[in-house]
Amino acid sequence: MDNKEGFGSCPIPIAEHDTVQLGHGSGGCMMNDLIREMFLDRFDNEALSRREDQAVVELGGARIAFSTDSFVVDPLFFPGGDIGDLAVNGTVNDIAMSGARPLFLSAGFIIEEGFHFEDLRRVTSSMVRSAEAAGVKIVTGDTKVVNRGQADKLFINTAGVGLMERPYLLGADRIRTGDRILINGTVADHGVAILSRREGLVFETTVESDSAPLNGLIETILDVAGDQVHALRDPTRGGVASALNEFAETAGVGIRLDETRIPIAGPVRGACELLGLDPLHVANEGKLLAVVAADAAEAVLQAMRSHPYGGAAAMIGDVVADDPGRVTLRTQLGTWRMVDMLVGEQLPRIC
Amino acid sequence: MDNKEGFGSCPIPIAEHDTVQLGHGSGGCMMNDLIREMFLDRFDNEALSRREDQAVVELGGARIAFSTDSFVVDPLFFPGGDIGDLAVNGTVNDIAMSGARPLFLSAGFIIEEGFHFEDLRRVTSSMVRSAEAAGVKIVTGDTKVVNRGQADKLFINTAGVGLMERPYLLGADRIRTGDRILINGTVADHGVAILSRREGLVFETTVESDSAPLNGLIETILDVAGDQVHALRDPTRGGVASALNEFAETAGVGIRLDETRIPIAGPVRGACELLGLDPLHVANEGKLLAVVAADAAEAVLQAMRSHPYGGAAAMIGDVVADDPGRVTLRTQLGTWRMVDMLVGEQLPRIC
Repeated sequence: MDNKEGFGSCPIPIAEHDTVQLGHGSGGCMMNDLIREMFLDRFDNEALSRREDQAVVELGGARIAFSTDSFVVDPLFFPGGDIGDLAVNGTVNDIAMSGARPLFLSAGFIIEEGFHFEDLRRVTSSMVRSAEAAGVKIVTGDTKVVNRGQADKLFINTAGVGLMERPYLLGADRIRTGDRILINGTVADHGVAILSRREGLVFETTVESDSAPLNGLIETILDVAGDQVHALRDPTRGGVASALNEFAETAGVGIRLDETRIPIAGPVRGACELLGLDPLHVANEGKLLAVVAADAAEAVLQAMRSHPYGGAAAMIGDVVADDPGRVTLRTQLGTWRMVDMLVGEQLPRIC
Repeated sequence: MDNKEGFGSCPIPIAEHDTVQLGHGSGGCMMNDLIREMFLDRFDNEALSRREDQAVVELGGARIAFSTDSFVVDPLFFPGGDIGDLAVNGTVNDIAMSGARPLFLSAGFIIEEGFHFEDLRRVTSSMVRSAEAAGVKIVTGDTKVVNRGQADKLFINTAGVGLMERPYLLGADRIRTGDRILINGTVADHGVAILSRREGLVFETTVESDSAPLNGLIETILDVAGDQVHALRDPTRGGVASALNEFAETAGVGIRLDETRIPIAGPVRGACELLGLDPLHVANEGKLLAVVAADAAEAVLQAMRSHPYGGAAAMIGDVVADDPGRVTLRTQLGTWRMVDMLVGEQLPRIC
């Protein structure tokens, strides 16, 4: 499928800028616009134009999933995690969303001169723990140091490869009318944890990032429902709203959500109201959206709830034929509203 | 082989610093010190402890080479290349040095807010051209934007995978006494090109970076000499001196170089003299050092010279049993001197 014409309804098209704006890294429609013009149209090939968070390629007879992510999160350490576990979990999750088993990671460090070794040790120790928890090995790496002021403390890139062992490939092109939308827990935890740390906000209970490796949960789901699971995506930058809009665009379907069913922790809801954020636009780092055939939805929901990373799983919506390319939400008041892809930038350096 | 105790003779050990210094990104012994303590001792596994520029892992029955590099070169555009072709060629070369055929790359961009789209287009176009020239595909990517002043213009990470199709794995552990050391052309071109651009130096002729994909040249060499080629390495950061010192340490052999045989372009030699640089410490981006069984050395030399990236190839030294772990140079005056690994930082952000 050629998705280049998708995601094209950005209200701030790239042609109106000469320079890169923060919004171009948001995970929303400005970023999609940038990626389409700068990268997709230039690096044109089949694997890239699937527009999933990972490429699936053939290598020596094996089917391999391959993905990369750079991490520029600020602050480096936050409640529930740090840049190290984010860097491992982020790439593990991007690989696993295809249905592949993540196996090997690379790690590239860009370090600002003057960065404390003690902090670097904390980060690398965290990467080791996360890699063990996810069952992957960090097998190759690179280190660059730049002069003071030319980078902010530490940036980490991870790339990873995984093996496609199942005979099907998950992806947005397999989404069908009648499918159910599931999520494995509460939304917006990561973004609110970062923001509260950054802004010095204090809530009654500390909001922690949900950063987690989801490959084990995905194995559990696929063991239960196999190819009745149609698509998986982790709603990171741009949040649940952007991920579901991408699904709706790519599959040419409508998605209807029920606000009363979307799990959200009390303090997170409070923080979003205080800060004027739509929790559906806030980043998650341990959540997945699963689009599942209706017949299998209940079984997948139970499987999620039996897993440590799915205790608060919920069925939050349906795939419909109406309003193709759009996501709509039935609010708690019973009214309907559009759920747009994130425009511009909400929280720079959220991951 | 456990190399953790190797490369340990750094005159500025990490324990004397609390913070990361520019020298820790130099490609020399401070960097090896950092990598050993921060990464190798923590991410302990067999693939990583080979200490080559790529990991070789088994994936679904296929033998895969996997490598990553981040690029922070300043300026982004320089005579003979730019950050885009450097990012493609660098990872292509790291994979190819194992004897594998590079096939697929990822690309992660960290962009400073305010970076010009025109420059980003130049860089991505250059990546496309370089990928085509090297016969690889860029199949997955990531884009982050950070606030103005939190990164310097543009950093690029590439990771890549290649297929090991030959029944042998090149590496420093295969180096033997009596082997010959070959290089495919002139040294120090890249570093001097960057430095002259950065410092506004003008020479009679412009010095151009040697940035090039070396996988085709390596295929040519291996077709001629097969597993009589024992080890290949691209002498990037830290230059020829650091790469050969790593070989000498890992293999537990001595290496003797003949200065009169080391190819160096006139303007590059002049610039190094002017700036007080040892050309053996200056970075290359289109060079490889080949350690080859004596019987095959002449054939490899001729094969190199027949290739577009090997016209100025030369046999520059021998592997000896004396002085294990050391590289020595017979100077043009007939005297002998030690060739040390680079200490500290010579040229920050050279690649």
